Amino acid sequence: MSSYEDRLKALREQLKADRLDGFVVPLTDEHMSEYVGSYAQRLAWLTGFKGSAGSAVVLPEEAAIFVDGRYTLQVRAQVDGKNWSYQSVPETSIAQWLKEHAPEGARIGYDPWLHTTTWVEQARAALAERGAELVPVGANPIDRIWADRPEPSRARLVVHPDELAGESSAAKRQKLADWLRENRADAAVIAALDSIAWAFNVRGQDVEHTPVALAFALIDADGTADLFVAPEKIDDEVRKHLGNGVRLHPRDAFESFLGTLGGKTIVVDPERSVAAVFEALGKAGAKIVAKRDPTVLPKAIKNPVEIAGQKAAQARDGAALARFLHWISVEAPKGNVDELSAEAKLEAFRRETGMLRDLSFTTISGAGPNGAIVHYRSTPETNRKLEMNSLYLVDSGGQYPDGTTDVTRTVVIGKPTAEQKDRFTRVLKGHIAIATALFPEGTRGCQLDSFARQYLWQAGLDYAHGTGHGVGSFLSVHEGPQRISPAGSAQSGGDEPLRAGMILSNEPGYYKTGEYGIRIENLVLVVPREAEGAEKKLLGFETLTFAPIDRNLIELDMLTDAERIWVDSYHRKVLEVVGPQLDGEAKAWLEAQCAPLD
Amino acid sequence: MSSYEDRLKALREQLKADRLDGFVVPLTDEHMSEYVGSYAQRLAWLTGFKGSAGSAVVLPEEAAIFVDGRYTLQVRAQVDGKNWSYQSVPETSIAQWLKEHAPEGARIGYDPWLHTTTWVEQARAALAERGAELVPVGANPIDRIWADRPEPSRARLVVHPDELAGESSAAKRQKLADWLRENRADAAVIAALDSIAWAFNVRGQDVEHTPVALAFALIDADGTADLFVAPEKIDDEVRKHLGNGVRLHPRDAFESFLGTLGGKTIVVDPERSVAAVFEALGKAGAKIVAKRDPTVLPKAIKNPVEIAGQKAAQARDGAALARFLHWISVEAPKGNVDELSAEAKLEAFRRETGMLRDLSFTTISGAGPNGAIVHYRSTPETNRKLEMNSLYLVDSGGQYPDGTTDVTRTVVIGKPTAEQKDRFTRVLKGHIAIATALFPEGTRGCQLDSFARQYLWQAGLDYAHGTGHGVGSFLSVHEGPQRISPAGSAQSGGDEPLRAGMILSNEPGYYKTGEYGIRIENLVLVVPREAEGAEKKLLGFETLTFAPIDRNLIELDMLTDAERIWVDSYHRKVLEVVGPQLDGEAKAWLEAQCAPLD
Repeated sequence: MSSYEDRLKALREQLKADRLDGFVVPLTDEHMSEYVGSYAQRLAWLTGFKGSAGSAVVLPEEAAIFVDGRYTLQVRAQVDGKNWSYQSVPETSIAQWLKEHAPEGARIGYDPWLHTTTWVEQARAALAERGAELVPVGANPIDRIWADRPEPSRARLVVHPDELAGESSAAKRQKLADWLRENRADAAVIAALDSIAWAFNVRGQDVEHTPVALAFALIDADGTADLFVAPEKIDDEVRKHLGNGVRLHPRDAFESFLGTLGGKTIVVDPERSVAAVFEALGKAGAKIVAKRDPTVLPKAIKNPVEIAGQKAAQARDGAALARFLHWISVEAPKGNVDELSAEAKLEAFRRETGMLRDLSFTTISGAGPNGAIVHYRSTPETNRKLEMNSLYLVDSGGQYPDGTTDVTRTVVIGKPTAEQKDRFTRVLKGHIAIATALFPEGTRGCQLDSFARQYLWQAGLDYAHGTGHGVGSFLSVHEGPQRISPAGSAQSGGDEPLRAGMILSNEPGYYKTGEYGIRIENLVLVVPREAEGAEKKLLGFETLTFAPIDRNLIELDMLTDAERIWVDSYHRKVLEVVGPQLDGEAKAWLEAQCAPLD
Repeated sequence: MSSYEDRLKALREQLKADRLDGFVVPLTDEHMSEYVGSYAQRLAWLTGFKGSAGSAVVLPEEAAIFVDGRYTLQVRAQVDGKNWSYQSVPETSIAQWLKEHAPEGARIGYDPWLHTTTWVEQARAALAERGAELVPVGANPIDRIWADRPEPSRARLVVHPDELAGESSAAKRQKLADWLRENRADAAVIAALDSIAWAFNVRGQDVEHTPVALAFALIDADGTADLFVAPEKIDDEVRKHLGNGVRLHPRDAFESFLGTLGGKTIVVDPERSVAAVFEALGKAGAKIVAKRDPTVLPKAIKNPVEIAGQKAAQARDGAALARFLHWISVEAPKGNVDELSAEAKLEAFRRETGMLRDLSFTTISGAGPNGAIVHYRSTPETNRKLEMNSLYLVDSGGQYPDGTTDVTRTVVIGKPTAEQKDRFTRVLKGHIAIATALFPEGTRGCQLDSFARQYLWQAGLDYAHGTGHGVGSFLSVHEGPQRISPAGSAQSGGDEPLRAGMILSNEPGYYKTGEYGIRIENLVLVVPREAEGAEKKLLGFETLTFAPIDRNLIELDMLTDAERIWVDSYHRKVLEVVGPQLDGEAKAWLEAQCAPLD
């Protein structure tokens, strides 16, 4: 196995051979996925960075890696500062950096299957100011030097039955077809993997933690569709489920198929389809209508069957988490538990449910100072014991056939400091402010974000991540378009009005670098609410996640009466939903945890 | 005087003569001013609409007027629905509407001295989809048919002395010159009238309520400047004040001067300079750098002298308002007061200070249901008595040489209903939430907006305007770039981080159409705050406006202890600042109003 330094050197030689002066390495795939298959993990292979978002630029004399606030610490731990300079987004963008650093007249390569057209246009304009050029590559130069690059997965598709989806694929496609005809379009390109999984009611196993299959699709205005997926992944059951309305093609045939669409009006989502799709359609003479993937909104608004499934999954997952938290409460004080053993134990409790298909993301199991690394992933090198008088933060979730879960709890082993209780309680108050918020229809997530931060702000504190992300239904644990985050942040999309049926996380936190991290995360469902004399249609949140919030970390004096009532009634509900699934010591422990605050 | 119907007919004939199929009528001037001189009040002349923001489009067979949520009621009262269709922005834009309504192949005229390039580009693109064309006019067709159009004002400029400005014009221009050199530009076009007034430390009298003079300017990278203003407006004192570094030209010479800038690099603000400026520079071969007017931020961040001036102006203005509110409390119950007499009386109290230069905007004096019209302006036709057991809303302000004020109070004559108290108290709680907010540096106004709305939201209520706007220093009462409003709203700019020294209004409200309106508005100053253990630089607000908040409208049970303490301490400060300026009955009344809540 070559060193990262060797790889960088090899890439520079490859670029020289390709007559390029630089190359951009995003962490994405041909579907603009957030989590990508191992075959597309080029950024990690090149730099050693294991975070879930980032990108890099390699020039002849310098190289830079770009990450957001979540990964400020992690990138320094994983990527060699001798060869790489660290850049923060959104403060710096690749386009800006290239404008300042690319040699004049340089040819900077990019893979058109890995970037949006918006990105290409911005980077091209920035480079033009430098007299430099952005050049699409035919083959990704990293793939040529990555000798042991994994093969794309060959895992089979499975049917996501109507009993769990709540609506047949044909019915979904019919609505999409109606929308296409209203918009006078012939078809829509669907390139996002979760959109394809949702539209066809299928699931896959090509990407870790997200049950999707590598595919492209076109949905037609007559309700039929073309699905591009490796033929060996389709068995008879799936073929029968898809039916005659879905024409199957090999995935490789997608680009050439786009070439046959001359004269057609095709909807393409500029955020979810890569530049190569636009280029192929443009070359063919198709009329491109740039609009959001029409599956995005119906996928985000869960139907009653999906909501019922989510609740069943939550109850099951909550019991696994309660067993785990009880186990931690017994074992950690003995000095027997470390981050990796805790992570394994939690997964084992989830597997015991017999329903777990996968984790919904790599568990964040952070003891003491590791809890302050927002998207921490424990490794044998970083693994820490859960020590007495320290905090432990665990952010985890499961993929169940009926729902996707995502929950964070922070617990104290032994006794917390006064500062820890103060910080935890401020985070809790922010969490409750979101959980109990009422707001008129049309309100966007960015309008709620500050409710979660206000008590931290009052003490001159904050957290460097959004407050909430959308969650899929046995799909992506990060699903748009809704989110709760400051408007204009790097992770945009805060402009989407919240609608009844959407599921989001509610996860304020506080992180003290080198000492401890705190996060309290539940999933919440947007629901209609009533108020006497209301002039607007009101919405609010129903909390879906049930697991005790560590009472030892709550500074009671800082809670208002209403907040205390919320905690007590939340714990009552935890006991109601999770209690019946536990027995013995675990149950007694849960009852104690869920007793009214004194 | 012709009727509005006749004017519309005359415009259509003029358009026909000009071979145009339509024309766009904005409410602005050559400086993108919010408030414009009477010579530029083309929208009001054509349609009868007296609001402060709006625009219209005239086509051969139809005509539409576009206003925002503040003017939904007013436009229907003032503009004939037979000839005009009412359109709401931002839901509909002129570009969108034209796309749907312009005849195919139409030539739609616009005056390039009254629109931004962004607007022109959007409208042009929308019309292109319709096969129609957007055509710049050489002379505004309205001016040809508007027989008695007022002459532009000939009022003289006056010096705004350094003792009030806090910084000399030369020093300000030197900083702007430094900025220009950093940005490798030769000069900046300054077209906004308040920017010119600020940069040169002059004030004018060309626009009602805003002490600015019609002018254009270019500030050079060497600290000198070219100022384009009608020569008769400049007397010796102003000439001496401007000094040798400022070259004076007639205002008419501006366009031809732009024509001489070929080869130069010129900063132009696309929001604050009209399309004609870009066209003239483009034609001349100048290199245009589209950047925000560099005076905007230093103008918004008040220096210590301006802050001291603002406080002096507030104390003076607060005494006038207190005298007025006392007078209302005595006279209104007798049935002796109507909206117009109240408005006049309030102005008289302000004039009695001996320092008033102008009102800072037309007073909103709204009794009963008229209070629900957000930007109401009382006329003899709409004038109402202040009746017993009704609410009265008065939003007003003054232009003083040391500061600009803007304050709204809502008072009850007689007894309020339980609903009125409930709504008033929700508005008050929102007002207090802004007044007491603490937030880290970098926070934008849009992140605070929901704090003001939350208690209304909880009851299914809201208000259709922003929560706060910036305020100038003896300049515009609406001054950017900071504001507190939902992100992405029509009045954008919510993206500007708040900085210590900025002044904003804090003015949540509630409006029940046909019944009553409530608004509580104070000006606030962004100030640094401290918190023990703070990790971020903290900011908060210091309230600058001092006038009693009607205690009869407060539902005490709805206030938290902290809110009650805020009201009491605010009232204590009102008494401290305003009390010494009053005597006799007015003083006794103020003392009673400012006593602790029971």
